[in-house]
Amino acid sequence: MLDTFMLGAIEAGGTKFIAAVSDQDLNVIDKISVPTTDPNQTLGKVADFFSSYSIAAMGVGCFGPLDLNHSSSTYGYIESTPKLAWKGFNILGALQAQYRIPIALNTDVNVAAFGELKRGAAVGEQSCIYITVGTGIGGGVVVDQQIFNGCHHPELGHIAVKRLPSDTFAGICPYHADCLEGLASGPALAKRANQEPNQIAKDDPIWELEAYYLAQAIVTYSLILSPAKIILGGGVMQQEHLLAMVKASVSQQLNHYIELPNLDNYIVRAQLKNEAAIIGGFILARDALRSE
Amino acid sequence: MLDTFMLGAIEAGGTKFIAAVSDQDLNVIDKISVPTTDPNQTLGKVADFFSSYSIAAMGVGCFGPLDLNHSSSTYGYIESTPKLAWKGFNILGALQAQYRIPIALNTDVNVAAFGELKRGAAVGEQSCIYITVGTGIGGGVVVDQQIFNGCHHPELGHIAVKRLPSDTFAGICPYHADCLEGLASGPALAKRANQEPNQIAKDDPIWELEAYYLAQAIVTYSLILSPAKIILGGGVMQQEHLLAMVKASVSQQLNHYIELPNLDNYIVRAQLKNEAAIIGGFILARDALRSE
Ligand SMILES: Nc1ncnc2c1ncn2[C@@H]1O[C@H](COP(=O)(O)OP(=O)(O)O)[C@@H](O)[C@H]1O
Ligand SMILES: Nc1ncnc2c1ncn2[C@@H]1O[C@H](COP(=O)(O)OP(=O)(O)O)[C@@H](O)[C@H]1O
Ligand SMILES: [Zn+2]
Ligand SMILES: [Zn+2]
Repeated sequence: MLDTFMLGAIEAGGTKFIAAVSDQDLNVIDKISVPTTDPNQTLGKVADFFSSYSIAAMGVGCFGPLDLNHSSSTYGYIESTPKLAWKGFNILGALQAQYRIPIALNTDVNVAAFGELKRGAAVGEQSCIYITVGTGIGGGVVVDQQIFNGCHHPELGHIAVKRLPSDTFAGICPYHADCLEGLASGPALAKRANQEPNQIAKDDPIWELEAYYLAQAIVTYSLILSPAKIILGGGVMQQEHLLAMVKASVSQQLNHYIELPNLDNYIVRAQLKNEAAIIGGFILARDALRSE
Repeated sequence: MLDTFMLGAIEAGGTKFIAAVSDQDLNVIDKISVPTTDPNQTLGKVADFFSSYSIAAMGVGCFGPLDLNHSSSTYGYIESTPKLAWKGFNILGALQAQYRIPIALNTDVNVAAFGELKRGAAVGEQSCIYITVGTGIGGGVVVDQQIFNGCHHPELGHIAVKRLPSDTFAGICPYHADCLEGLASGPALAKRANQEPNQIAKDDPIWELEAYYLAQAIVTYSLILSPAKIILGGGVMQQEHLLAMVKASVSQQLNHYIELPNLDNYIVRAQLKNEAAIIGGFILARDALRSE
């Protein structure tokens, strides 16, 4: 390992790629954002950016689904995605061919969860779940301080949920209609309210529904994964009043069946905001370098 | 470590305790079953049994909820349970005081899952979920060939489920009414049908409901934990026709959103039947001995 070195991170999102360089203490040195068009163009601009730096390793959080099964012949490929230019694209292979340094790849939400555990809302914990409530609903999982991949790919946002009897909204998930994402994502809120989610009045009963479904998902994740902390992020969580409503609903739905830690410590807001996946990426890069 | 040694295992259930002794190759040498009354009496009979053998280590699968948090002051205690004589009982402490050998404790379902992964339906896999559909619904999880405990205690049987609109049964869970266990355990089936589950006709539409809820839970577990295999056991799964119905419903509910392996390999029947927790217990005991 070099005495001093720089690290690279990419947050590969559906609308933009963020690329960043840090020093060995994870201080950001430089950063750009480029629109997600096609692989050639977008990765070309990212390469232009990195060409000014000599980075020793890279961590990448990418939109999915990704094939993360090490024994698969398509390991590191983007799987089915509505972004057709990227469907079946070997993003890990493309980056490795370009940079010839250790590169760690995982999903955007997993890398964000990892960043929050290492430097954000779950510092000092062994495990956490990071849930983003935005255009979609996604979840990343860290167990024993490592990203939890499972065998295929966890997709926490698409679980079935028990309906509130009063809720007759059909849901908008193209696969499942009224799964969690179909009922509670930003676009679901917009369709329910027929206006932008940030315009919906704080006392609109829609927020009760939103809190109920998010809380139900948190209870389900807790019953199955039993993490030390649940971290909530994404555009919809910018509604300041929503977090307290979610906690109240969790408490009601648990009905004392299992005892969770004090909910104020258990269910918390993301701390790193738009930086989580980049910081997680730097740490993955550093880990990749160390395990060389 | 001794040249040759014997191992002990206890499956501590709500109605009976099974205790067994094996040789170092996990062949059962002797076994008894004693009714679960109070700790003194039941553990006394277990002690009588073990007193004929010199066992080197012991693995225990116990009904829960158990405190399995190593840093807790009540680590190894049975927590809230309707079996009042056992509520708050320090079962690990009691066994350690009696035997003064390495003792590994976990929940009955986790130890059964471990047994199935090591010697049963999931041999060769890194991970599995074992679900028992009996008097209750419980689930054990193995990840990376180790029992997965989480931070508190996973309780897979009590997740909320999306109702079939045609299903008006209120559910029987004292905590949640219509959680998975409340809608689909053996006693739930009995109440739905007003007869013993093993008497319900194979073509009764009740089995469609049962298959739907079990399948929904399997999809949820798969989306969150993404295991290599799902193993189904317990009294209700003795209904031979049910497994195929569950697989058909999983396939329908997934709606190709994620690709699972061939469902015939993914969702399988338990192989070790009533032995899973005892065999898992022996292996935990052997591991405890090795890590001494
Ligand atoms: N202040 C806000 N209040 C409620 N919803 C918001 C707010 N800001 C953004 N959203 C919603 O969040 C979604 C965007 O989520 P975001 O996490 O910002 O991006 P993405 O999920 O696409 O990465 C949109 O549906 C938007 O309407
Ligand atoms: N052949 C069968 N078909 C359907 N249900 C059964 C059958 N055998 C047992 N059951 C039901 O399974 C439950 C008992 O489950 P079991 O796994 O044997 O024990 P437990 O869960 O108490 O450890 C009871 O509700 C019983 O009615
Ligand atoms: Zn969906
Ligand atoms: Zn319940």
